[in-house]
Parts: sequence; C-alpha cells; structure tokens
Amino acid sequence: MVGAGQLARMTHQAAVDLGVHLEVLADGDADPAVAAGAPFRTGDPASWPALAELAARCDVVTFDHERVPADLVDALAAAGHRVRPGGRALRLAQDKLLARTVLEAAGFPVPAFRGLGGDPVAEVHACGAEWGWPVVCKTVGGGYDGRGVAMVGPDDVARVLADARPGTWMAEAAVDIALEVAVVGVRTPSGRWAAYPLVETVQVDGICRELVMPARVPDGLAARATALAKSVADGIDAVGVVAVELFVTPSGDLVVNELAVRPHNSGHATIEGCVTSQFENHLRAVLDLPLGSTALVAPAVATVNVLGPDDGSDPRARLADALAVEGARVHVYGKRAAPGRKLGHVTALGPDHGAALDVARRAAAALDGAALPPDLEVVAACG
Amino acid sequence: MVGAGQLARMTHQAAVDLGVHLEVLADGDADPAVAAGAPFRTGDPASWPALAELAARCDVVTFDHERVPADLVDALAAAGHRVRPGGRALRLAQDKLLARTVLEAAGFPVPAFRGLGGDPVAEVHACGAEWGWPVVCKTVGGGYDGRGVAMVGPDDVARVLADARPGTWMAEAAVDIALEVAVVGVRTPSGRWAAYPLVETVQVDGICRELVMPARVPDGLAARATALAKSVADGIDAVGVVAVELFVTPSGDLVVNELAVRPHNSGHATIEGCVTSQFENHLRAVLDLPLGSTALVAPAVATVNVLGPDDGSDPRARLADALAVEGARVHVYGKRAAPGRKLGHVTALGPDHGAALDVARRAAAALDGAALPPDLEVVAACG
Repeated sequence: MVGAGQLARMTHQAAVDLGVHLEVLADGDADPAVAAGAPFRTGDPASWPALAELAARCDVVTFDHERVPADLVDALAAAGHRVRPGGRALRLAQDKLLARTVLEAAGFPVPAFRGLGGDPVAEVHACGAEWGWPVVCKTVGGGYDGRGVAMVGPDDVARVLADARPGTWMAEAAVDIALEVAVVGVRTPSGRWAAYPLVETVQVDGICRELVMPARVPDGLAARATALAKSVADGIDAVGVVAVELFVTPSGDLVVNELAVRPHNSGHATIEGCVTSQFENHLRAVLDLPLGSTALVAPAVATVNVLGPDDGSDPRARLADALAVEGARVHVYGKRAAPGRKLGHVTALGPDHGAALDVARRAAAALDGAALPPDLEVVAACG
Repeated sequence: MVGAGQLARMTHQAAVDLGVHLEVLADGDADPAVAAGAPFRTGDPASWPALAELAARCDVVTFDHERVPADLVDALAAAGHRVRPGGRALRLAQDKLLARTVLEAAGFPVPAFRGLGGDPVAEVHACGAEWGWPVVCKTVGGGYDGRGVAMVGPDDVARVLADARPGTWMAEAAVDIALEVAVVGVRTPSGRWAAYPLVETVQVDGICRELVMPARVPDGLAARATALAKSVADGIDAVGVVAVELFVTPSGDLVVNELAVRPHNSGHATIEGCVTSQFENHLRAVLDLPLGSTALVAPAVATVNVLGPDDGSDPRARLADALAVEGARVHVYGKRAAPGRKLGHVTALGPDHGAALDVARRAAAALDGAALPPDLEVVAACG
C-alpha cells in the first residue's frame, strides 16, 4: 500500500485479521501505519524507484492517498504489476478539474465549473457575473480537509488568488446545499460492487467533523445516490473502496462534489457499524476476494472526528475521560498533535441517530479537551 | 505483555485503537503478535533478565500466557514494577491443584480432587473406588487444549500414568456435565468489575471448538455463574481479564472447572459481539482506565475455532472460500499450520444462536477444508 497514514493504519488492522501481508510505503517511521506495526519501507510515493521496488515485492499495489503521479501508476501496470485502482481512477481523484470534465461529459450532475487560466482574478469575476456570488475557488489538485477551497465574494477574489499559478485553480458555482452525503462503496476488478448505507456528513470549515449512518433521507434519495455512485465507479473503472461525496439540494437533487478511490473518512463508521469494514472490503476488492456484507449491525451509527486542539495538546492525555463515556469506540491514530489535524475518531452505535451521536460527541469532546462546540448542533436540524 | 501468541496479537490490535504502546516478549519473530506488528524483543518468559528488562521499559507488565514463574512475578512487584495480574492470581492459574485447594477452602464448588504422590497408579485406583469410574487424571500445570487431561477407567490408569512424575499429576471425580459455560469478566486494580454475557462452550477432545453468547440457560443460572466468577476474581485479586470455566450439572449446579487470568478463547466473540472486546478491556483494566461496556450488539454471537487440518495444510489457502460465507468475520492468527493447532477463528452475529452458528461453522469448515463434522451437532441439542 502506497502511504502509511491513518487509512493505512486501519487497513493494516484489517489485514491482520485476514492474515494478509500488507506492506506500506511510508514517508517516515513515525507514520500512523508504521506505528501500528505495518511492515514498511520509507520512500517518496512520487518516485519511480520507490514505487517499482514496492510493486516488485507485492502481488497487488494499492493506495492510502492519491499523491502518486498517475503516469507512474500507468507505468507500473504496463510493466505487468497489478495496480488497484489504476491510473485512470487515480487521475480523476487527483485532478478535480479533470473529474468535473469527465463526469459532466458522462452526464453526471456537477456544479457549473471552469478552469482558471492566465488571468484567474478576471475569470472568477466573469464566473460571478454569470453564476452569481459567492464563487467556489479551489485548487485543481492536492487540497484536502478544507485547504485549497474558498468561498469568495467579489471583494475577496484578488486576495484569495494572489498567489495562484495559472492552470492550478478552478472555479465552481456555489451549490445551495441542504445536506451533504457520501456513498462509500467497493468494487472488484471484475466489476462486482457493494455499497454501504448512505452516510450523512457534517463539514465545519471544510473539514468532516461528524457522520451518521444511515443518512436521514428518504429511501428513494438514498437509492438514487447509491446508483449514481455505482455508475461513477464503473465509469472510472475504480477498484477497491470508492467514496463519492454528494450535495443534496433543497429540492432533493444530487450534485457530485468530491471523489476518492481509497478508504475514506466517510466510511470510518463501518468498522463497528457494519458487518465488514471498508478497510477489510478494500483488501478483499483489490485482492479479488469475495466482498463482505455491508449491512449495518445497529439501527444507527455515528462517528465524530477528533481534531487537534488549538492549544496543541495531545488528545491521548485525555484518553481516560473518553473511555469513561459508555459505548464510545475510540480510535487514536498515533500522530503528532497539531491544531486542526485529524488525530482520531470516535464511533458509537445506537438505537437512533441522536443516541449514537450523543455518545460519540461526548467522547470526542473529552479527547478534544473542549466543551461540545455549539456549531455542531446543526446536525440535529438535518433530515 | 509477556508472550506473543494469538491473544497478544488481538491485544495488539486493541492497543492500536487506543494508541497504547504494547510491547511483547516473544519466543521468536514468527510469533502471531510479532507477525501483526507488535513491537517485540525475544526472550525466555521464565528468565529473570528477560522479564526485568521488559518491566524496566513498561508502565505495566501483563501476560498472554501463564508460563511465567510466579516467584519472578512476585520479584518484579517487589522491585516496584506494576505487574497485573500479580503472582497470587498467576499461581492459581498455573497450578490446578493449588487452585482446587484454595477454591475449595474458600467455599467454591469444585469436583472431588486429590494430588497424586509417590504411587500415582494405586492412588487413582483408590480414587476410583471412592468416587466411581472414570476418574479424570490431569497434570497439575502446563496442560492446555486437551493435552495433559485424560478420563481414565481402571484398565487405563497404568498406561496413562506410566511416565507420571510424583507430584505432577492430580485426580478428580468426573462431573456429570449437562453443559459447559464460561464467565469472561474483567477486573481493575481497585476491584471494579464487568462481566460479559455468559458464554456457552463446546469442547471436542478437550479443545474448545465452538462458543455461543449469551449461553442458552435460565437467567438465574447465568446470574449465579457470573456472581461466582466475580467472587473468584475478587478472592484471587485478579487484574485484567479473568475467565472461569464452569460445568453445569443436569440439576443446574455449577462446578468450577478451569481458571485463566488473561484474555481467553471463551471471549473471542466479544471482538464483534460486544461493545468493548475482552482485549480492549484487558488493556483498560491493567492500565486502570475506565472499563468498557460488555453489552452485546446482537441477539446472538457464535465463534468457531479453526484448527489445523490433519493433512497439515494452511487454512489461509482457502481464505476465499471462507470470505464467501456472508456475515463471517474471519480471524487468522498467522501461525505455522499443524494438525489440531488453533490457527484462527470465525465469528458471526445473528438474530438467534442457530443462525449465528450456521454462518460461523460454514466459514470455519471452509477454512478447515473439511465438511462440517457431525460431532459438532451436539451443540444443537444443548440448553
């Protein structure tokens, strides 16, 4: 597996259950998967020697992040290595402008968008004039957890794009969002597919803070979202876990937001909440083994991410407080603490969404060392 | 943790979730916990230097097996190290004759028993004359998975005890067993206690093959068993997981069979079947953290052990067949295959015991490469 972050860490845990040998290509020996004991070598995931050496030792190469040049992935495949997902799917997950272009051409619902060229400030003003303000400005590649995405009004454009290099940013029309959801599914090399129940996500400042499963939406909407995600996964020939983040508009329309072709934060609740976790199913898929059941084991499951507190303290110092919350399932990633960094998550099962969320929030707040932030109350108003 | 077998392997997985640094003292670098990535040093668990070196690096020393001289454990404690459980509890888990003697003196129900001295054959004949035949002959220490235990009739005594050294064997009256159950509980240094739902176990040739939770017994019996186990745990000052295996007689009486003061095979179903696994609760207990909920997450949970097939083949070669069984949760320990060796287990949740057992049995049989053995049908007749 290329990468050794928390996704690789949790994939390693699943590999241990199955007796599968998972080796990771790590940035360094403090990476979360390495700290959890995954066999590793360090190397640059953008370098051919590191990738070729990994591929030579493995039956299948897969990924915990998308920071790998797709051309090198194509070259690995051309050299006869099994790389899952392949370059085509990775390219779309890396390049938001390409993804929008391909998905729109294939008839999928996406926001109005435009790549920004030689005069980005003027081009965004033109977009605002056409679509209305604010306009969403985002980097074409590399942004995550809210970095590289900004909602800009006419007065902000020059400031936000002050350092934008031509061809590296894109603009999108802002979507009127009633709710954000994600489909987490898994696809095998031959196209077998299984989807988890629709996930409802709550983003704060562009970072996923909470997710609940199943999403509190009408069955028809969940079925439409899942069918849409399957079509996307088939269309890009994804293998392994695919996460399709969707906006739901006030009228119930679906708009594709982001795409990931690896285990995803939206699927963390599957560890305890479903018969088979996304991490185990990712392994099953890339190894072309039978897929596991994606059924829920409880009426409702909630996950709350643990972000590094502003004071830079390590949530592990407050582990006892979190474990005192009855029913909380605590996951700590073993990363160095830094403000706003995803350092862990807490999952809880419950008879209903409110009960599960309450447990997960209280334990996450204990780890944060903070009172329950009031802005999270928006979740209670959803659905 | 002293030892690096499958119990340490699963404890390592729990430690990863909590961000707890668990280091194991292994026999070698192929041990299951080492293969799963637990930090390790190799050393003899019966040697003072190896134990002292481990203790010097850790806040707390705990165990995945009982093959540690209790005197050395006492010496570690005397040197100021936290050792949980301590020498007293370990001694009782190691020495079946001592355990019987102490438990009987404390008023717990145990079978009639006698230590065998200088003329073991004659002494067993005397036992048979007093208690009736067969007589259970067992080694005082060291036996497990059916080794070192025999039901003997008058004609077998001389053969079974041919090599018995004086003082190393004991005799017990055979108990009329309607059902075997186990209480898996967890106790903190200050005596906080939590018990899992009563586990029903099925032994074949002295090896635990199947277990279901909750045991199919009247509530009153389960409550009596759990109260008895708590008294035993308190009495021996156990810390961490305690497993008390009990015989249920046809009249519903309880008789203490064996005792373990570490995570135990009887508790494997807690990984998926309960809010908090026995492995996480063992860590919580020895670290004096709040205990996690022991509640079930499904009406019934079943675990079937995977034993090495007679042909010596590795069940991992048949992983795909096991994963094709919908709902099966497969755990492979990464051990070298050998006939009769515990190489893994399969757990399934279900709406009732029959459904859960059916799934777990089919997947385990797939790993065994064998048809479902007819002798396992006894379970269907229980309770």
